[in-house]
Amino acid sequence: MELTQEQFNTYQKEGFLVVPEYFSQLEVENMKGELPALFAEDSPRRVLEKDGDTVRAVHGSHSTNQLFKRLTRHPKIVSPARQILGSQVYVYQFKINAKAAFSGDFWQWHQDFIFWRKQDGLLTPRIMNAMILLDDMNEFNGALFVIPGSHKEGMIDVTSPQLQEINNNLTGDKKQEWLLSFTANLKYSLPQEIVQELALKYGMYAIKAPAGSAVFFDSNIAHASPNNISPFSRSIVIVTYNSVENIPVPVENPRPEFIVSRDYLPVEALSGDALLLPSLI
Amino acid sequence: MELTQEQFNTYQKEGFLVVPEYFSQLEVENMKGELPALFAEDSPRRVLEKDGDTVRAVHGSHSTNQLFKRLTRHPKIVSPARQILGSQVYVYQFKINAKAAFSGDFWQWHQDFIFWRKQDGLLTPRIMNAMILLDDMNEFNGALFVIPGSHKEGMIDVTSPQLQEINNNLTGDKKQEWLLSFTANLKYSLPQEIVQELALKYGMYAIKAPAGSAVFFDSNIAHASPNNISPFSRSIVIVTYNSVENIPVPVENPRPEFIVSRDYLPVEALSGDALLLPSLI
Repeated sequence: MELTQEQFNTYQKEGFLVVPEYFSQLEVENMKGELPALFAEDSPRRVLEKDGDTVRAVHGSHSTNQLFKRLTRHPKIVSPARQILGSQVYVYQFKINAKAAFSGDFWQWHQDFIFWRKQDGLLTPRIMNAMILLDDMNEFNGALFVIPGSHKEGMIDVTSPQLQEINNNLTGDKKQEWLLSFTANLKYSLPQEIVQELALKYGMYAIKAPAGSAVFFDSNIAHASPNNISPFSRSIVIVTYNSVENIPVPVENPRPEFIVSRDYLPVEALSGDALLLPSLI
Repeated sequence: MELTQEQFNTYQKEGFLVVPEYFSQLEVENMKGELPALFAEDSPRRVLEKDGDTVRAVHGSHSTNQLFKRLTRHPKIVSPARQILGSQVYVYQFKINAKAAFSGDFWQWHQDFIFWRKQDGLLTPRIMNAMILLDDMNEFNGALFVIPGSHKEGMIDVTSPQLQEINNNLTGDKKQEWLLSFTANLKYSLPQEIVQELALKYGMYAIKAPAGSAVFFDSNIAHASPNNISPFSRSIVIVTYNSVENIPVPVENPRPEFIVSRDYLPVEALSGDALLLPSLI
């Protein structure tokens, strides 16, 4: 279940690849069926919107939920990940971003890799994301904006005044610092001047695709998404695969295991019907 | 410079009409050239974003700025307004909405007429908006979302709990109450259930058009716009025309003249080059 040469080339050139309706409606329904229970669980894995009520994201569900565990081993995403990274891979991170109807807040412009480099000791960007849309992503509900080709710039080492300010405002419990990576005030967001420069250089693209579509994207592509003021929720799952040849170096105060997995065993792919066998779950 | 029969029919049916590139690039440049001075003026006419710094809107500039005064008398918008309202018209309201790059906040779902009815004593919706885009409005910078046909529902009399809450939180200066109509917490926003219902019934449409385009829209069409996280500012001018046969009844605590004009004299149209004669300004 590898990508075609053309798909592979697109990914390399643009830094992302959209595969429309990659998973079936039934597979999507199975996954969506797991969300209410995961969203209802009051746990540090869960990040809320600023309203303190709506679920913004849930982390590490692949270690608690059997269906999502199976998703991380699905050949439709494991094979492309191996192909792109050129090695065996393991699950580095797993998250569900909800972007709820009427409430889902924006994500600032950022590259993913810098978060992993600065916080987790990941030295090279031999890591990639597989995003699966559990709802249609359209022009109304906060489509993912990317700057195609911006991954070629590599990691842009931002040290934004915002970051300083946020850090200065931090009180007490330093262990909660990782939360800053998942709120609307992103810790390593790209400065406006840089986004403008990148947009002028590369243009901008809004990813719109039906539920079940997959988006593979580079850890250094600049991306963002606006708020969701529509009546349509827009939930996605992101499985981040790292090369087994790119194990992070130890850091002080590592982020929780449910944010950054320290299980470096290569994933083994299941069969293609991995999300369709309820009796096995 | 009236609308064609087809354009007129579209307006009646959908509740809005987009006329792409209605004003020339030069006319747009002339208008944009006026913005910095208007935005810089520290005045009650000016509404800021939540950041307390970025300009969100400026009101009533047609009474202080000669070019925008001329815009309100431009035959390209006065004639359609007369045609749609079936009478002479006067300028009820004038505003510039900035929606600045990276900062412009969203506008909640609402109908315009209820604001005018509840606050200004306007009894019937024989009133309409002419919006002129001073920048391209695209899928990245907070396009205007409308629910086509929703104007046929008439005014939906919302009494939202939010409103109660906002009102309860109001301190001291009651005269500033009008401000609530222009912040992200809209006083008469439509409840989520109603927006969902309308969207299911009528669908949703995102208006995207180049700078210079005009959008005529009904005072009862449900509309909203998301935040602008892009590097592209998206400024618009909205001239609201009321029928001279629809003069509001007196109300207690009327809003300021720069929000609701009490000059009921019919506008007289200028010639088509009204925005191109700098010597006359």
